[in-house]
Amino acid sequence: MNPPTNVCPYGSYLIVHNVSKRHNIGTLVRSAAAFGVTEVCLVGARQFNTFGSHGSADYVKYRHFPSLQECCRYLKEDRGCRVMGVEITEDAQPIQAHPFSGPTAFMLGNEGSGLSPQQAQLCNAFVYIPQYGAGTASLNVTVAASIVLQHFAVWAGYPERPRTGEKFEIGERPQRTGPRGMVPLTEEEWAAERERRQDRRAASNWHSELQDSEGLLDPFLERADAEVG
Amino acid sequence: MNPPTNVCPYGSYLIVHNVSKRHNIGTLVRSAAAFGVTEVCLVGARQFNTFGSHGSADYVKYRHFPSLQECCRYLKEDRGCRVMGVEITEDAQPIQAHPFSGPTAFMLGNEGSGLSPQQAQLCNAFVYIPQYGAGTASLNVTVAASIVLQHFAVWAGYPERPRTGEKFEIGERPQRTGPRGMVPLTEEEWAAERERRQDRRAASNWHSELQDSEGLLDPFLERADAEVG
Repeated sequence: MNPPTNVCPYGSYLIVHNVSKRHNIGTLVRSAAAFGVTEVCLVGARQFNTFGSHGSADYVKYRHFPSLQECCRYLKEDRGCRVMGVEITEDAQPIQAHPFSGPTAFMLGNEGSGLSPQQAQLCNAFVYIPQYGAGTASLNVTVAASIVLQHFAVWAGYPERPRTGEKFEIGERPQRTGPRGMVPLTEEEWAAERERRQDRRAASNWHSELQDSEGLLDPFLERADAEVG
Repeated sequence: MNPPTNVCPYGSYLIVHNVSKRHNIGTLVRSAAAFGVTEVCLVGARQFNTFGSHGSADYVKYRHFPSLQECCRYLKEDRGCRVMGVEITEDAQPIQAHPFSGPTAFMLGNEGSGLSPQQAQLCNAFVYIPQYGAGTASLNVTVAASIVLQHFAVWAGYPERPRTGEKFEIGERPQRTGPRGMVPLTEEEWAAERERRQDRRAASNWHSELQDSEGLLDPFLERADAEVG
């Protein structure tokens, strides 16, 4: 597949779905920030726990998808990605072989059970991290993802971040467009939300229907309300 | 320096000192197990938290040192190691350059402040992990150590562990010689402890002096007692 010409030829993406220990996500986001990940794609919950991100969560771009299918369609068709599962499958290539060819989205498995058959089916290829000792069947999911992202960044030749003293320089903090630990709505999602609200308003009994079950979307909805007027 | 001829020419060692978040040590041990680390050297506390090790803690060899100096003397003189600090110093080499030449001990810094001047002084060289994004000044210490150990294992050409299905095979669990999460005494430490006890017994008032402040050595002392008779 030829990647679309308007995207970075070496973009890296991370698909986070079914990572059950939420404290792993914060550290994952920190590594994604360090290794120049283009976008973190969260599937399922729009909310995530930033514990362990050490303030890096605001610098990472997120995109939310209600389903894995929609996520992979976006990555493959709109971003020209190969979707690579991080898993020890029969035909997986070792990470140090750098089996990459262009923009790549890495699909992580669950901490306990690895990639589900549904996830594996959506992957174009697999990469794994060889192990050499007898003491553990697998790595921590955040450690595995970080190793993969580090190798990809080296392969892609990303420009190294300048340093000051013994730390890498942190850029200016981007303005958050929603509550911390919540993927903001895209312009399309805003538009859809505004439309839904206008319809509901027209139906006049909308106020009682508005709240989502956990009230998580309230901060977004207030903005949508204000824009609908 | 020529390494002693009786040691693995490509052994890898991990120096854990001043890692303040104890939950990081469990995940560190899991990565050490995965990447075939020869010994984990704990400096200071003999006790460590195995949370996050997923049962791998029993497979890893540990050695305890009361001080950094003694630890580095052992590694350099007895194991023929180069001690490499994992830190972003001026003269640090990037990890993907594989700046290794033989058995290597990796010294980790504290999560917040990195390597102390005292630690840095004991290092023969430094290695760092380049970063490419603007969002974080540094990586999580366990993630950094894991990346370094993975590259070293690839460089050293360790034989890959066999797999069954989508997991690496776990070897037979070695017998623990002391309580979980505690570095067992070496034969030399046993001998010294027995000698101390015999001296104390001779001094007759030894029973009241015996307990270490937190009672942590009790399980060892009971064995030493039995052996002294």
